[in-house]
Amino acid sequence: MMDELHTLYYLLDLAGTFVFAISGAVAAKQRGLDLFGICAIAFTVACGGGIIRDLCIGAIPPTGISDWKYLLTAILAAAMTISLYRLVLRLNHPVLFFDALGLSLFAVTGAQKSLAYGHNAEVAILLGITTAVGGGVLRDILLNRIPVILEKEIYASAALIGALIMVLGDHFKWLSSDLTSIIALIVCFGLRLLSLRYHWNLPVYSDNKE
Amino acid sequence: MMDELHTLYYLLDLAGTFVFAISGAVAAKQRGLDLFGICAIAFTVACGGGIIRDLCIGAIPPTGISDWKYLLTAILAAAMTISLYRLVLRLNHPVLFFDALGLSLFAVTGAQKSLAYGHNAEVAILLGITTAVGGGVLRDILLNRIPVILEKEIYASAALIGALIMVLGDHFKWLSSDLTSIIALIVCFGLRLLSLRYHWNLPVYSDNKE
Amino acid sequence: MMDELHTLYYLLDLAGTFVFAISGAVAAKQRGLDLFGICAIAFTVACGGGIIRDLCIGAIPPTGISDWKYLLTAILAAAMTISLYRLVLRLNHPVLFFDALGLSLFAVTGAQKSLAYGHNAEVAILLGITTAVGGGVLRDILLNRIPVILEKEIYASAALIGALIMVLGDHFKWLSSDLTSIIALIVCFGLRLLSLRYHWNLPVYSDNKE
Repeated sequence: MMDELHTLYYLLDLAGTFVFAISGAVAAKQRGLDLFGICAIAFTVACGGGIIRDLCIGAIPPTGISDWKYLLTAILAAAMTISLYRLVLRLNHPVLFFDALGLSLFAVTGAQKSLAYGHNAEVAILLGITTAVGGGVLRDILLNRIPVILEKEIYASAALIGALIMVLGDHFKWLSSDLTSIIALIVCFGLRLLSLRYHWNLPVYSDNKE
Repeated sequence: MMDELHTLYYLLDLAGTFVFAISGAVAAKQRGLDLFGICAIAFTVACGGGIIRDLCIGAIPPTGISDWKYLLTAILAAAMTISLYRLVLRLNHPVLFFDALGLSLFAVTGAQKSLAYGHNAEVAILLGITTAVGGGVLRDILLNRIPVILEKEIYASAALIGALIMVLGDHFKWLSSDLTSIIALIVCFGLRLLSLRYHWNLPVYSDNKE
Repeated sequence: MMDELHTLYYLLDLAGTFVFAISGAVAAKQRGLDLFGICAIAFTVACGGGIIRDLCIGAIPPTGISDWKYLLTAILAAAMTISLYRLVLRLNHPVLFFDALGLSLFAVTGAQKSLAYGHNAEVAILLGITTAVGGGVLRDILLNRIPVILEKEIYASAALIGALIMVLGDHFKWLSSDLTSIIALIVCFGLRLLSLRYHWNLPVYSDNKE
């Protein structure tokens, strides 16, 4: 099935896997999990969203568990995080940078793959978001905390914009699919970085008296 | 696939979606989530159980993500909850009322859809319960608390009764499918309301020393 | 589909279901859940991993919800746990013993079933582990705690070894499939018991300053 998907898609997907696996490994290590736990969380964050997407579009078995390159990428990222931990920690800004990159990559590739399987625009947008934020949500569930994506700056909404651009591009065919991907990627990534820089937030309704 | 399912089924399903989305939006707002978080939780509570059911019966892609009416219904319910929050809160009894209605609607439609896909009675009963309580369980997992359905009054057991009546009706064909749905709905709903009114509970085994 | 799977496989799978259901029922009872909650958690722990596996390999509907023997086994285990609670509690070592047995049984049968559905070695290993530890992870998520398998002695790693032996045996065909299963079972079980006895652990990286 991967054949009909573009090489660029594939490379972006592995890049997203790598950066999300690092974010998972850092969180798992901070909670004091053992070697297996760190690898398991890294793999879950990196591939969890994509596995849910694949189940929903009927891509059986999910690529995340059948293509060894994803597993290998996640384990390499976990190994790197463990061995270069002090370095990775000093990269606080870089981690946010890579996480934003992973978010954008997965939003775009998630929407692309859903369209490639012949599903409609709504499926592509919802599963683009799911691919992008699903792994992070699973990480927070496993580490027993409220998913941060539900609380923080423009995050899932950036993924929504990225997936939306992808779907519009596919529908109107103004540009080649590759060019659309790159634009969607840049917009989503830029939006996320700007929201981090300027602490943009969606409205919170704070009259939570009872 | 929706074609062969009855219009009544479809309307009941959207009604259940609406009331569950309200219960999700209220819970998310009380936790201080942002606009996107509230919509995401509302959608998850409303459609999560049905998505799990669809994955299990092979309805790919799940209707909850491919039929825009479900998404729209959930977003409308979230918007209504946010804008009329004080009003919704004063409706404490109404919320329990609507939640009981959603529970009954989803137990019946979940069992119906599983049967329509040709699965056996056990699948229909278990997935009727899953459709009814799945969204609420996902809500509580995302908001990081023990699923209330596992702790409180006759709830999932009411869904079990509703799904069971649906399956028995389908098997013995005493009555038309529509009539069976309505009876199952009324019994499940009545059971839930009575258990709320009289604080009926299933036995708890409280010698939890150790 | 069960036809082509061996009777031994089937019996092992039901045995694993029984022991995992006990571990789930004990955990649910300690949390003060009601009768339905105890049965629901027992069933989830016993069948949750297998249901995820079946969704990933395309076994629709998942056996755990379509074959009544699994449900019955889980309910019997829950009933036994409730009625003989004091006895079960005194069986602390036996519970760990049965849990280790369930782990080994599910790692082997999970890998076997994935191979029987024609999937590759990676899928079989990852889903062997998933079948073995998935139910326990779901139990801990539902009971709102960090999955213990991510924190404790050699556990998921024993499942990895068991599934790996199964896959290697299937590939090289040195021995009959039954014999390979038994060897995989014994190695995984032995490894888990030894790690309990001697408190073997995987390395934890404890410089979690920051």
